[in-house]
Amino acid sequence: MLKEGDKKLLVKLGARLNELRTEKELSLRQLSYISNLDYSTIGKIEKGQVNITFTTLVELAKALEVELVEILNFRID
Amino acid sequence: MLKEGDKKLLVKLGARLNELRTEKELSLRQLSYISNLDYSTIGKIEKGQVNITFTTLVELAKALEVELVEILNFRID
Repeated sequence: MLKEGDKKLLVKLGARLNELRTEKELSLRQLSYISNLDYSTIGKIEKGQVNITFTTLVELAKALEVELVEILNFRID
Repeated sequence: MLKEGDKKLLVKLGARLNELRTEKELSLRQLSYISNLDYSTIGKIEKGQVNITFTTLVELAKALEVELVEILNFRID
């Protein structure tokens, strides 16, 4: 069961991933194709609905051509 | 099923977490107590045997009193 704080964090992470994807002008389908991840899963991740695993986070970082630290440059309160 | 590359990444992450824990002179039990995570799970995470979720990574970062970027400051090849 996710705590309230965890949910907020996942929403923050998802928003950051969405921001990076749109900056790169990639659609969900394009990012799905590049990352080999299901596009509906990426959609849920961007909405903070999935407690993403480390390896999936790395796949997305590679597909977005960013370092992990660029994704995680937000404060964890 | 984890790919070989994923396993290597998890081992790298685990080693980094172990490095941070030992720098702080915390035992597994102490880190377990602070983070509210099971100490045997932390042990497996440090050995790269667990595809850690984002919220667990954040719990460990908080318990180790480091920012996520300090944990993830290694290259993802």
